[in-house]
Amino acid sequence: MTTAQQAYQELTEISKETQLIDSIGSLLNWELETYMPKNGAGLRAQQLSYLSGLAHRKFTDPKIGELLDIADSNGVAVASHSDKAINLREWRHSYDREIKVPTELVEEITRTAVVAHDAWVQAREKSDFSIFLPDLGKLIALVRQKAECIGYKDTPYDALLDGFEPGVTTAQVKVWFDNLKAELIPLLRAIQAAPLRPKTEIVHRHYPIDRQKIFGQAAAAAFGFDFGGGRLDTVTHPFCSTLGPGDSRITTRYTDTFFNESFFGILHETGHGLYGQNLPADAFGTPMGDPISLGIHESQSRLWENFVGRSRPYWRYFFPRAQQIYPEALGDVSVEEFYFAVNEVKPSYIRVEADEVTYNLHIMLRFEIEQAIITGELAVEDIPAVWNEMFEDFLGIPVPDDSRGCLQDVHWSFAGFGYFSTYALGNLYGAQIFAKIREDMPDLDQQMACGDFMPLLDWLKVHIYSLGQRYRSMELVEQITGRQPGHEALMAYLNQKFGELYQL
Amino acid sequence: MTTAQQAYQELTEISKETQLIDSIGSLLNWELETYMPKNGAGLRAQQLSYLSGLAHRKFTDPKIGELLDIADSNGVAVASHSDKAINLREWRHSYDREIKVPTELVEEITRTAVVAHDAWVQAREKSDFSIFLPDLGKLIALVRQKAECIGYKDTPYDALLDGFEPGVTTAQVKVWFDNLKAELIPLLRAIQAAPLRPKTEIVHRHYPIDRQKIFGQAAAAAFGFDFGGGRLDTVTHPFCSTLGPGDSRITTRYTDTFFNESFFGILHETGHGLYGQNLPADAFGTPMGDPISLGIHESQSRLWENFVGRSRPYWRYFFPRAQQIYPEALGDVSVEEFYFAVNEVKPSYIRVEADEVTYNLHIMLRFEIEQAIITGELAVEDIPAVWNEMFEDFLGIPVPDDSRGCLQDVHWSFAGFGYFSTYALGNLYGAQIFAKIREDMPDLDQQMACGDFMPLLDWLKVHIYSLGQRYRSMELVEQITGRQPGHEALMAYLNQKFGELYQL
Repeated sequence: MTTAQQAYQELTEISKETQLIDSIGSLLNWELETYMPKNGAGLRAQQLSYLSGLAHRKFTDPKIGELLDIADSNGVAVASHSDKAINLREWRHSYDREIKVPTELVEEITRTAVVAHDAWVQAREKSDFSIFLPDLGKLIALVRQKAECIGYKDTPYDALLDGFEPGVTTAQVKVWFDNLKAELIPLLRAIQAAPLRPKTEIVHRHYPIDRQKIFGQAAAAAFGFDFGGGRLDTVTHPFCSTLGPGDSRITTRYTDTFFNESFFGILHETGHGLYGQNLPADAFGTPMGDPISLGIHESQSRLWENFVGRSRPYWRYFFPRAQQIYPEALGDVSVEEFYFAVNEVKPSYIRVEADEVTYNLHIMLRFEIEQAIITGELAVEDIPAVWNEMFEDFLGIPVPDDSRGCLQDVHWSFAGFGYFSTYALGNLYGAQIFAKIREDMPDLDQQMACGDFMPLLDWLKVHIYSLGQRYRSMELVEQITGRQPGHEALMAYLNQKFGELYQL
Repeated sequence: MTTAQQAYQELTEISKETQLIDSIGSLLNWELETYMPKNGAGLRAQQLSYLSGLAHRKFTDPKIGELLDIADSNGVAVASHSDKAINLREWRHSYDREIKVPTELVEEITRTAVVAHDAWVQAREKSDFSIFLPDLGKLIALVRQKAECIGYKDTPYDALLDGFEPGVTTAQVKVWFDNLKAELIPLLRAIQAAPLRPKTEIVHRHYPIDRQKIFGQAAAAAFGFDFGGGRLDTVTHPFCSTLGPGDSRITTRYTDTFFNESFFGILHETGHGLYGQNLPADAFGTPMGDPISLGIHESQSRLWENFVGRSRPYWRYFFPRAQQIYPEALGDVSVEEFYFAVNEVKPSYIRVEADEVTYNLHIMLRFEIEQAIITGELAVEDIPAVWNEMFEDFLGIPVPDDSRGCLQDVHWSFAGFGYFSTYALGNLYGAQIFAKIREDMPDLDQQMACGDFMPLLDWLKVHIYSLGQRYRSMELVEQITGRQPGHEALMAYLNQKFGELYQL
């Protein structure tokens, strides 16, 4: 007979094996975006589908259910706070989700998404939603089915959100977003009404790509990104990929007439990479070695990109260095002019190019539309009209076409419903954590102004990175800051920073 | 009950799955040598060992034996020449070899090789054989055990050789090599006695690396290497890696003061790559989609590198182009001077840097020593002394130290016994095939002198690349040339080429 201890041991081995398979898949995906010759795409698709099938079979083996029952037959382990308890809690959570969705449905979603993705690429190119409509409709129907299989209390959207941000409900996100919106839109209107404008042509001067590479790499290294256990490469759609201990890679793309794109992109991915590089290596392959959620991951990328990288003390240190490497572009610019230019607030169509204030409005718009699609309140064919109306309402500018409207993001084409809100949750968690860091580290601004980010990194290692999945996202924020996550810290940060910049 | 047809179908699926796993492993190995951050080595080792274990378990499952019996219960299929017959023949060959070696022995060899490899790296650095001796001794004992498990008729070396060059025996290689040696050494002595010498300082002038990349890539493309389904990267120890259809990659290393190293290295790997890129894609995952043997693979790398790339017509076309890209180095050089310089014959210590004449002597030396080690005639501790004595006897120069002697090659450190002779077999097969190509293609020299290599590539596709493993290596050579492989064509080629160059 298997003892509880043996069952736990066996679960650990299966978990490690599954993670090893996933890490191989991550490398294959990374390589697909970076170096793979184009004719290798067919073989790569076969390799990836083989690996994901292998991992899925491992982790939905009914044996897992039996082992989970044996390992914690009376629920005592999970009630404690030991590492073992955490692992059992998270294995149970993933297993229960996975087995509820029939393999045929998973495969049908995957197949439909491949076709839908192609349709989306075409639709976006031609800015013609009707090309994407039939496949998107099919995909949504399948995703709804998936939500029904998983089950939920209030709304099917909960079932989807829980896959990316375990423990957070749609109702909770709504409260946060409603509160945020109520203060964000007035702030945006005030900024738009203010007479001050930054000289943004500064960031659109000529920035040679070879020098951007050097400068970006130096900036990532200054944050503590370990290039002995990581890389920086060029791709079409930037991302960060952590394969496991000692191997965490960031990517970017360069435009020689726009400073912000690659530079802040690198800082953003570096934030993800620092989380990945500092997870507990000895727990690799178990939940205690994993990041908590997409929202907490995003809190780290936004923290390093914005709260640090778009701050005045940061540029006090980095601007003279930027002038050295870009003398032609920045020779006649002051640090204040530059700081203002990289912090311009201006409604724009494309989410990934949005500033710190308007970014969250982009997310809220998507969150509301996604929910309405999943519950069926919004018909798929009505998405463009509703999108455009809401966009103008939120951002104050009319949408010129669907490419710059509801077709801009890739997520729906791969059935990634329930994902978007985590981008704004990252800002919300990040701001609340960063406010606490400021309390704990009164010298933070001086350290940043001297280019010393190690005390900040050390704080984050201790309070977040080294903990794996010990806490769920909301618990972590409460554990760190002493209060439940809310919109207040983010609004206080935005009001203070942009109030001062625009002299509101 | 499983029918013969069902059994064949099932074997095909297992074979394809195993190959897919191997192709993933190949990518991981390629990436390890090209882009992996150094701290990722531990995780990569785990990933690779997981994949090789997975493939090994798949292919040594006793079910395979049963399926093979059912698929060809009366041996009729294998007796025919259908694709199915070939696949069954090769599956049987691999399976019978694999299952004879106990998994524990395979694992022990792998573990010992990891330690032995580190010891070899140190030993080579310090040129101290005693550092490598204990681990090499262990490894050889294990490899002998492996040979005993596999079984053999004449000598345990047969069991090892058969893993790389199926169907070729040690006795056969001995005959070829004895015949070769009897004519090679006199040729070498005659060359050394000749008064003519090329101006080799030409190839040691300054060749900027960025231009070497461009020129090398152009040379590979001219041979028909498809960069849409391949890449060229820089590594420490160059190799070619074919992952599967549409993805075949070559590598090189550059020295800015030596033209030959990267240029002929690229042509060599391109030869391997052309074979890989032109295997029948629809048979991928079965022996009918695989290359025949290491010897035949090497015949292609040596054919493109030497018989084509070191020929006079080749340089008639490429030399003016080399002058354009390296005007400083080659402005005052004639095509004849250059042709002679890249074809200098001169005994040297390092095999991979050897010319066409002395290269084979390096291989013969290793072949004789390896055999004596495996049979036990030669004690491991006596390797350096015997190596040095034989080296001077073969090449006519004394070995200055073990780093440039018996420690120079990596193969033994990973238990690669039985492998070396395939390098010389490549020359022998290649020369005999190339002589037949000359008969079939009377315009070959003119085509090469015009930079047109497509007729040659087409010939090779039809007669070799598209055939997968239809023939074993000796059968293929006989099939193509109408006679069994022998040393005559290689010696005729070398005598003719170098007799003319050195005016013997």
